[in-house]
Amino acid sequence: MSLLVVGSVAIDSIHTPTAVRERVLGGSAVHFSYAASFFAPVRLVGVVGDDWPAEHTQLLASRNIDTSGLKVVAGGKTFFWKGKYAPNMNDRETLEVQLNVFGDYLPELPDNYRRSDYLFLANGSPITQMKTLEQVEKPKLVVADTMDLWIREQHEDLLALFKRLDGLVLNDSEARLLTEEENLVAAGHQVRRMGPKFVVIKKGEHGAMFFSEHETYVLPAYPTDRVVDPTGAGDSFAGGMMGYLAAHGQFDSRALKEAMAYGIVVASFTVEDFGLDRMKKVERPDLDARLQRYRRMLSF
Amino acid sequence: MSLLVVGSVAIDSIHTPTAVRERVLGGSAVHFSYAASFFAPVRLVGVVGDDWPAEHTQLLASRNIDTSGLKVVAGGKTFFWKGKYAPNMNDRETLEVQLNVFGDYLPELPDNYRRSDYLFLANGSPITQMKTLEQVEKPKLVVADTMDLWIREQHEDLLALFKRLDGLVLNDSEARLLTEEENLVAAGHQVRRMGPKFVVIKKGEHGAMFFSEHETYVLPAYPTDRVVDPTGAGDSFAGGMMGYLAAHGQFDSRALKEAMAYGIVVASFTVEDFGLDRMKKVERPDLDARLQRYRRMLSF
Repeated sequence: MSLLVVGSVAIDSIHTPTAVRERVLGGSAVHFSYAASFFAPVRLVGVVGDDWPAEHTQLLASRNIDTSGLKVVAGGKTFFWKGKYAPNMNDRETLEVQLNVFGDYLPELPDNYRRSDYLFLANGSPITQMKTLEQVEKPKLVVADTMDLWIREQHEDLLALFKRLDGLVLNDSEARLLTEEENLVAAGHQVRRMGPKFVVIKKGEHGAMFFSEHETYVLPAYPTDRVVDPTGAGDSFAGGMMGYLAAHGQFDSRALKEAMAYGIVVASFTVEDFGLDRMKKVERPDLDARLQRYRRMLSF
Repeated sequence: MSLLVVGSVAIDSIHTPTAVRERVLGGSAVHFSYAASFFAPVRLVGVVGDDWPAEHTQLLASRNIDTSGLKVVAGGKTFFWKGKYAPNMNDRETLEVQLNVFGDYLPELPDNYRRSDYLFLANGSPITQMKTLEQVEKPKLVVADTMDLWIREQHEDLLALFKRLDGLVLNDSEARLLTEEENLVAAGHQVRRMGPKFVVIKKGEHGAMFFSEHETYVLPAYPTDRVVDPTGAGDSFAGGMMGYLAAHGQFDSRALKEAMAYGIVVASFTVEDFGLDRMKKVERPDLDARLQRYRRMLSF
């Protein structure tokens, strides 16, 4: 089934306690697409400037990612993010953001994208996410991400968007901010009652929680002793999850849990090197082998 | 098989963001014993003052916990701890500690306790833990807990103890302090190489990790939206784990993982009210039912 993602396409500079990597391929839609492409063809919609290296597009295109929705703005510059990780590799600080061409970008879907079955609204304002959603004809499954900025500054628009979503993916601090509830189990269900049929709370190194009307569960992160760069892990998780669902063609309770597990496994590779460097060396059998180990790990 | 625990027996005053509870029955050996008693008879060794209410001893004795090793010091006062939890209910601050009779306590095992198959050395200095261990004839499984104070102040004694242990249970911040390693997977294996055959790192609301020479896994906490008082959850976890192992009579890889799961389930009840209040209302079938839900939660 067709899977469409709309979100940021970026250049990242990443500082970790032990290394610095300048101008790495990044952005929510990029990490999402790459992860999803292990499972299903992906349609990528986003915007870059003319500083965008052609080889990045080539890399994505080589992965069964349709980049015809990637708009290049002549004379513009690509979204740039510079961040620094704390020694625990979980907390991070934004050192610099240049929105550039992403700042006033309103996605316009190519005609053939308007019929997409699976839609992921990655990082973007709820207004932009809603305008994107309205361009898709009868999608089967709509899932969105959000972030603290929109929770604080576009609260009403976000609540309006929630009513149109099947699923919402957000991280633990965002769930707490949105609900003013410290307990994540209570927060997850509170977010769900705002509209989405299911909610996934990402907890970074501690895994992810799932909430639907009749289900509550938590899956741990896959334990890895090699955490080099967590940037994009959350988007990669969402990509693995949505890619699996799109390939599977179903999104019942069982499929959703397997999708969560694949998302967790994909993300565990993402963090093992900067940007997409680790992912570029991964093949689908690596994912399946790690999923099997993960499944055994959780069996008793 | 016989299960012996040696550790603190205490009176706790607990401040949470929404409530205060004064002079609650607590202490590592108490929480451990109560949790373990769902699975196997327990021998409790500890010390209290003559301020200790007789009904606490009666409660423990009613649970198949042998309290003949609980020493009452006439004219002495029981170990007292006062703590305050942060709004996240995971971080806490110690407001007051009175070691009282626990301060210079050296456990002396009753003769019939010296032959115990399963031994848990709960909260205590490594010197005291070692002196206790030396009184037990050929135990089958020896597991200890430790804490930041001993890591900082009795490091050499702790390392000597590690070489005598089958298992060590400690929390995430303690593992990081001990190894100066931020990544918990790396830290867990590093602690293991210091001596214990297996290491369990407790992560509070995020569950627990297991490390042996050939195994690494993580199990999430059982998700509960009712976290009233996390005091004793770690000891309760250890009690559930050791109680299950003692009842099972084996400690192979499979038994250890089931034991971890039972520990997690028991701890998930402990946090649902102050002190032992929730536990007092729990029966073994409640544990088994929650374990089944937990197992299903982790199956995909």
